[in-house]
Amino acid sequence: MPVIFWLAPFSSLLALGFAYYFYKNMLKLDEGTDIMKKIAKHVRDGASAYLKQQYKVVFIVFMIITLIFVILAYVLKVQNPWVPFAFLTGGFFSALAGFFGMKTATYASARAANAARHSLDAGLRVAFRSGAVMGLVVVGLGLLDISAWLLVLNYIYPYAAETTNLLVITTTMLTFGMGASTQALFARVGGGIFTKAADVGADLVGKVEAGIPEDDPRNPATIADNVGDNVGDVAGMGADLYESYCGSILATAALGAAAFAVEGTGVALNAVLAPLLIAALGIILSIIGIFLVRTKEGATQKQLLSSLGRGVNVSAFLIVLASLGILYVLEIPNYLGIWGSIVTGLIAGIAIGQSTEYYTSSSFKPTQRIAESTKTGPATVIISGIGTGFVSVTFPMLIVATAITLSYLFAAGFSFDIVHISKGLYGIGIAAVGMLATLGITLATDAYGPIADNAGGNAEMSHLEPEVRKRTDALDSLGNTTAATGKGFAIGSAALTALALLAAYIEEVKMMFVEYLGMPNFILNGVAGNIAAKDATFMDFIYHYEITLMNPRVIVGAFIGVMATFLFSGMTMNAVGRAAQKMVDEVRRQFREIKGIMQGTAEPDYARCVAISTKAAQQEMMIPSFVALFIPVGVGLIFGVSGVVGLLVGTITSGFALAIFMANAGGAWDNAKKYIEEGNFGGKGSENHKAAIIGDTVGDPFKDTSGPSINILIKLMVMASVVTVGIAIKYALL
Amino acid sequence: MPVIFWLAPFSSLLALGFAYYFYKNMLKLDEGTDIMKKIAKHVRDGASAYLKQQYKVVFIVFMIITLIFVILAYVLKVQNPWVPFAFLTGGFFSALAGFFGMKTATYASARAANAARHSLDAGLRVAFRSGAVMGLVVVGLGLLDISAWLLVLNYIYPYAAETTNLLVITTTMLTFGMGASTQALFARVGGGIFTKAADVGADLVGKVEAGIPEDDPRNPATIADNVGDNVGDVAGMGADLYESYCGSILATAALGAAAFAVEGTGVALNAVLAPLLIAALGIILSIIGIFLVRTKEGATQKQLLSSLGRGVNVSAFLIVLASLGILYVLEIPNYLGIWGSIVTGLIAGIAIGQSTEYYTSSSFKPTQRIAESTKTGPATVIISGIGTGFVSVTFPMLIVATAITLSYLFAAGFSFDIVHISKGLYGIGIAAVGMLATLGITLATDAYGPIADNAGGNAEMSHLEPEVRKRTDALDSLGNTTAATGKGFAIGSAALTALALLAAYIEEVKMMFVEYLGMPNFILNGVAGNIAAKDATFMDFIYHYEITLMNPRVIVGAFIGVMATFLFSGMTMNAVGRAAQKMVDEVRRQFREIKGIMQGTAEPDYARCVAISTKAAQQEMMIPSFVALFIPVGVGLIFGVSGVVGLLVGTITSGFALAIFMANAGGAWDNAKKYIEEGNFGGKGSENHKAAIIGDTVGDPFKDTSGPSINILIKLMVMASVVTVGIAIKYALL
Repeated sequence: MPVIFWLAPFSSLLALGFAYYFYKNMLKLDEGTDIMKKIAKHVRDGASAYLKQQYKVVFIVFMIITLIFVILAYVLKVQNPWVPFAFLTGGFFSALAGFFGMKTATYASARAANAARHSLDAGLRVAFRSGAVMGLVVVGLGLLDISAWLLVLNYIYPYAAETTNLLVITTTMLTFGMGASTQALFARVGGGIFTKAADVGADLVGKVEAGIPEDDPRNPATIADNVGDNVGDVAGMGADLYESYCGSILATAALGAAAFAVEGTGVALNAVLAPLLIAALGIILSIIGIFLVRTKEGATQKQLLSSLGRGVNVSAFLIVLASLGILYVLEIPNYLGIWGSIVTGLIAGIAIGQSTEYYTSSSFKPTQRIAESTKTGPATVIISGIGTGFVSVTFPMLIVATAITLSYLFAAGFSFDIVHISKGLYGIGIAAVGMLATLGITLATDAYGPIADNAGGNAEMSHLEPEVRKRTDALDSLGNTTAATGKGFAIGSAALTALALLAAYIEEVKMMFVEYLGMPNFILNGVAGNIAAKDATFMDFIYHYEITLMNPRVIVGAFIGVMATFLFSGMTMNAVGRAAQKMVDEVRRQFREIKGIMQGTAEPDYARCVAISTKAAQQEMMIPSFVALFIPVGVGLIFGVSGVVGLLVGTITSGFALAIFMANAGGAWDNAKKYIEEGNFGGKGSENHKAAIIGDTVGDPFKDTSGPSINILIKLMVMASVVTVGIAIKYALL
Repeated sequence: MPVIFWLAPFSSLLALGFAYYFYKNMLKLDEGTDIMKKIAKHVRDGASAYLKQQYKVVFIVFMIITLIFVILAYVLKVQNPWVPFAFLTGGFFSALAGFFGMKTATYASARAANAARHSLDAGLRVAFRSGAVMGLVVVGLGLLDISAWLLVLNYIYPYAAETTNLLVITTTMLTFGMGASTQALFARVGGGIFTKAADVGADLVGKVEAGIPEDDPRNPATIADNVGDNVGDVAGMGADLYESYCGSILATAALGAAAFAVEGTGVALNAVLAPLLIAALGIILSIIGIFLVRTKEGATQKQLLSSLGRGVNVSAFLIVLASLGILYVLEIPNYLGIWGSIVTGLIAGIAIGQSTEYYTSSSFKPTQRIAESTKTGPATVIISGIGTGFVSVTFPMLIVATAITLSYLFAAGFSFDIVHISKGLYGIGIAAVGMLATLGITLATDAYGPIADNAGGNAEMSHLEPEVRKRTDALDSLGNTTAATGKGFAIGSAALTALALLAAYIEEVKMMFVEYLGMPNFILNGVAGNIAAKDATFMDFIYHYEITLMNPRVIVGAFIGVMATFLFSGMTMNAVGRAAQKMVDEVRRQFREIKGIMQGTAEPDYARCVAISTKAAQQEMMIPSFVALFIPVGVGLIFGVSGVVGLLVGTITSGFALAIFMANAGGAWDNAKKYIEEGNFGGKGSENHKAAIIGDTVGDPFKDTSGPSINILIKLMVMASVVTVGIAIKYALL
C-alpha cells in the first residue's frame, strides 16, 4: 500500500479520539436536579433495555444468515471464504456505532437541559458536541473497518498479481456492507416502530383524550416516547448513515478498480484509494467544523441555524478544495472531471436539503397551505398533506437525475459513448462519496435533534423554570429543521449510493460470468478497450440483451421492485398502527386503574409502556426485514440476473420517491401543527389545532418509520443482490 | 382485405345498433313523479352544461396539439401526413363515447328509480341496460374507427407492397390512440375533480357540519354531486376504457406486423387482424351476456351479484373458446401458444378483480380492520388505510408480473431467447386484448354503478317510499362492488396495454432508426432471423446498449418517470383539495344567507355549486394534463430514446402501483364507513362513524380522481412517446 493510504486509518482513529474526548467532557458535566437525574435514568435504562433486546434478536438473525453464507462459501462454493466473516463484522460495527450514539445521547440530554439553565450557548454546545460523538463514531468506525479489510485482503490476494483477485476483494467488501445494511434495517425498522408506537399512543390518549401537554410526566407513555427518540432517531439513523457511508466508499472503490484497469494496476489502485482518502480528509474537516459551532445568549432561531450552518458550510467548502488536491496527488486520469463529479454530489446534497426545507418548513407556502386546510377539518388536512408530499418528490428527483447525468458526464469526459461507461459510473459513485464526505459534521447536526428534543422533555418533566424551557424549546425547534434537511440528505445519498452499488453489481456480474460460465474475459477488456473488436461483440450482445428493457424478465423485475417498496412501506405502516393500538389500550388502562395519576400523586407505570413498545418492535420488524432480504434472492432464482437488475432499478426509483414523499408529508404535517400552535389559524386548542394534530399523528410513521426505512431497504436489496449474484447466475430457473 | 376482416366493422355496427335499441327502449319508460323529473332534469342539465364547457376547452387544446402535429408532419417532416387527422378522430370518437354514455346515464337514473317502484328486477334491468349502452358504444365506436383507419391506410399504403409502409400505418393508428388518450385524460381529470370537489364539499358541510343525510335536497351541493357521478364516473370511465380498448388492439396489431414479418405478408396481415377479430367476437358475446342479466324480486345482495356475474362469466367463457377458433381459422403460427396468452390475460383480469375485492370489501379482514381502527380515532384510520393500500399492491403486481411472463413465454414457445422476442411481445399485447375482449359487458357493469347511485339519489331527494329506497339501496350497493372490481380491471388492462404500447414503441424506434439515420434494416430482420450473423451484431449492440440498464440515460429516465406519476397524483390531489375548499365556502354561504333551506321552505342554489365545480375542474385539469403530454417530449429532446424508454418503464411500474394503492385505499375506507353504518363498531352517528367518514373523504380523490387518472397517464405517456419518436431520434441533446 502506498504511504498516502495510511491517511485513512489515521483519520479514523482521530475521529474516534475526538469522539472519546467529547464524550468524556460531556460526562464530566452535572446532570442537574435529582428529578432530572431520575428521568434521565428512566430513559437511559429504557433505551439500554430496548437495544439489548434488539441486539439479541439481530444476533440470532445474523447467525442464521452467516450459516447460509458458510454454506454458499464452503459447500456450494459460489462465494469466497471471507464472506461470512465480512458479513459479521459489518453487522457488528454498525451495531456498535448505533450503540455508542444512543449511549451518548441518553447521557447528554439531562446535561444539555442543565446547561441550558446557565445559557443558550452552553445548552447548544452540550447537545451539539454530544451529537458530534455519534457523527465521529460513525465515520471513524466506518473508515477504520474499510481500511482494515482492504489491508488484509490486499495482502492475501494482491490485486496487482491477478485481475480475478479483484472479485474476491470487492465481493468481500460489499458483503461487509451488506452486514452493516442488515443491522441497519433492523435498527431503523425496529427503532422506528418503537418510537412511533410510543409517540402515537402518547399523543392519542394523552394529548387528545386526556388533554395534557406533550412530555407531561403524568402520561405513562412519555418515557417510552423519549426512549424512542434515542433508539429510533439516534441509533437508527446512525446505523443507516454508517452503511450509506461505507456503501458509497466500497462501491466507488469497486468501480474504480474496474474503470481504471487498462491504465495499469498502479492507477487502478489509486482510483480505489481515492474515495477512502476523500473520506479521510472529510473527517479532519468535519472535526474543524464541529469546533466552529457556537452561539451567543438570546440568539434567534435564525442565528442558531446559522451557527450550525457555519460549521457545516466551512467543512463542505474545504472538502471541495481538499478533494481536488487529493485527486491531483493520486494522479487520477481526468482528475478535473472526477473532481466535477464530487462537486456535483455535494451541490446535489445541499439542493435536496433546500427542497426538503421548502416543503416542510412553516416559513413557506406548502406547509402554510396545509395549516390553512385545517379550516375544513382533518380530511382536507390529510388530502393536502398527501398532495403536497407527492408533489414534493419533483425537485429531489430532478436533482438526482441531474446529478447522475452530470457526475457521469464529468467523469466520462462529456460522452455517453459506451467505451467510457466504467469511468462514468465511477463518477456517480464518487459523487455519493462527495455528498457523504463531511458526514462527521452533518450527522452531528442530525443527532443533535433528538438530544435537544429529549433535553426539552427532561426540562418539561422536571418542571424547570419557563426561561429554561424557552431555551430548550429554541434548541428543539432548531433540531426539527436540521432533522428535515438531514432526512433529505440521507435519502439523496442513499439513492446515489444505491446506484453506485447497482453499477458495482453489474461489474460483479461481468466477472462472475467469466468465473462461473467460463466465458472469455471479453467484457472487462472490451468496455475499456475497443468494443468493436469482432470477437467480443457477440458475447457483449448477449450480455447486453440480458439487461435491456426489451427483455421481459427485466420488466417483470421492475414491477416486483416497485411492489417491494410499496409492500415494505405498507407493512411498516401497519406495524406502527397495530403497536400504537396496544399502547393506546395500555395508557387508557393506566389512567383508569392507577388512581391519582392525573393529580400527580401516583406515578404511572412507565416501564410497562417501554416493554410494550419493545415487544411490538421486535415482533413487527421481522417480516418486513425478511421481505427485503429474500425478494432479491427469490427474483434471482426465478428470473436470473435480468430480473435482479430490473428489480433493483424498480426499487431504487420508486423507493426514492416514496421515501421523499413520506418524509416531506410527515415533516409538513408536523410543522403545520407547530405553525398553528404559534397562534395562526386559531392557535392551540382550536378545532383547527385538533385537525392539525391528526395530520401530525398520521405523519409520525411516515417520517420516522416507513420513510427512513426505505433508505436502507434500497441499499440492502442491492447489496443482497451483489452477494448472491452467484446463485442468480448458476441456478436461475428462467 | 380478406373477407373475415369484415367481421370487425359488422360487430361494431351490431354493438351500436343494440346500444341504440337499449337507449330507445329506456327512453320509452316513465320518469316517474314530477319531482323525480325535475331532479333528473337538474342533473341532466348540469352534466350537459359541464360537458359542453369541458369539450370547449378540450377543443382548444386539440387545435393546438393538431397544429403541432401539422408542423411535425408538413414542416419538419418527422411524421407522416395522416397523423394530425388521426389525432383528431381519436379525440372526437373518445369524446363521443363519453357523451353518449353520460346522456344515457342522465336519462336513465330517474327511470331506474321509477322502475324500482315496481320491482327490483325492473330497476336492475333499466340501470344495467342503460349501462350497457355505454359499454356497447365504447366498443362499437372503438372497433369501427380502427377498422375504418386500417381499411383506408391499407388501401393507400398497401402493406404487402413495401415493409416501410408499416411505419406509416402503425404510427398513424397509434396517433389515433393518442388522440383518444388525450381526450380521456381531460375527461378523467376534469370529471374526477368536478365530482370529488362536489362530493367532498357536500359531505364536509352537509353531513359533518349540518348533520343532514347523503343526497338530502337541502344540501346545495347535492345536485353537483350527482352530476359529478355522471361526468366523472360515466363519461370519464368511458373515455378511459375506450382508449385502453383501442390501445391494446392497435399495439397488438403493430406488434403482430413486426413479429410475423418473416413468415410472409399474408401471415403478418392475419396477425394484425387477430386482435380486431377477437374484439369483434367479444362484442357479439357481450351482447349475449347482457341479455342474460336479470334477477327476481327480493333478491339478496349475493343473488344480485350473481345475476351480473352470470352475464360476465358466460361472455368470458365463450370468448376463450371463440378466440381459439379465430386463431385457428387465421392460421396463425403457434396458435395454441398465442391462445394461451389470451387465456392468461383473461385470468389475470379476473384475479386482479378478486384481489381488489378482497382488499376493499367489508366481508374481508383488511376493511374490517380499518373499521376497527376507528376506535382510536381518525389518525389511525388513515394510517391503517394507507398501510392496507400499500400492501394491497402486492397481489396485483405479482399477477401482472406472472401474466407478462406467461403470456410472453406462451407466444414465444417457452423461450426467452432473443430470436423469439417479437412473438413474445405480441403475446403480451394479445393478453391485454383478451382481458378487454368482453369490455362491452364488463363496462356495462361498471357504468351501471353510477346510474344506480343516481337512481338512489333521485329516490332520496324525491322522498319515495322506504320500500323503494331499500331497492335502490340494494342496487347501489351492488354498484359499489362492481365499481371496485371494475377499477382493478381497468388498472390491470391499462398496465398490460401500456406494456404492449411500449413494445410497439421499441419496434417503432427500430424502424425509425432505419428511416432517419439510414442504418441497414438489420434489426427487423436480425431479430426474426439469425442474430449471430456477423454483419448485424455491431449495430445490434449499439442499439441494445441504448436501452440497457447500464446506460445512465435510461436510469435518469426511470427516475423522471417515477417522478411524473407522483407529481401528477399530487397535482390532482391538490386540485381536489382546492376545489373542495371553494365548494365548502359556497355551501356554508348558502346555508347562512338563504333563509329557509334547512326548513325545506327555500330551495338552495344548485346551479351555483355546479358552476363552481365546473370552473374549478376546467382550471385545475390543465396543468396536470400538460405535464403528462410534455414530459415524454422533453425527456426525448434531452435524453433521446434511451431516456424515453427508461421514463416509460418508470411511469408504467410506479403508476400501476400508485393507481392500485389509491383505488384500494379509497375503496376500503368507503366500505369501512359503510360497514360501521351497518351497525358495527358503534354504528351511525358514533365517534367511530365520524372517524370513518374522515377516512372516506380522504379516499374520495384517491379512488375517483388521482387513482383512475393514472391509468390514462401511463398509456398517454407511451403514446405521446410513440408519436414523437422522430423528434427524440433526430434532435436529442445528449
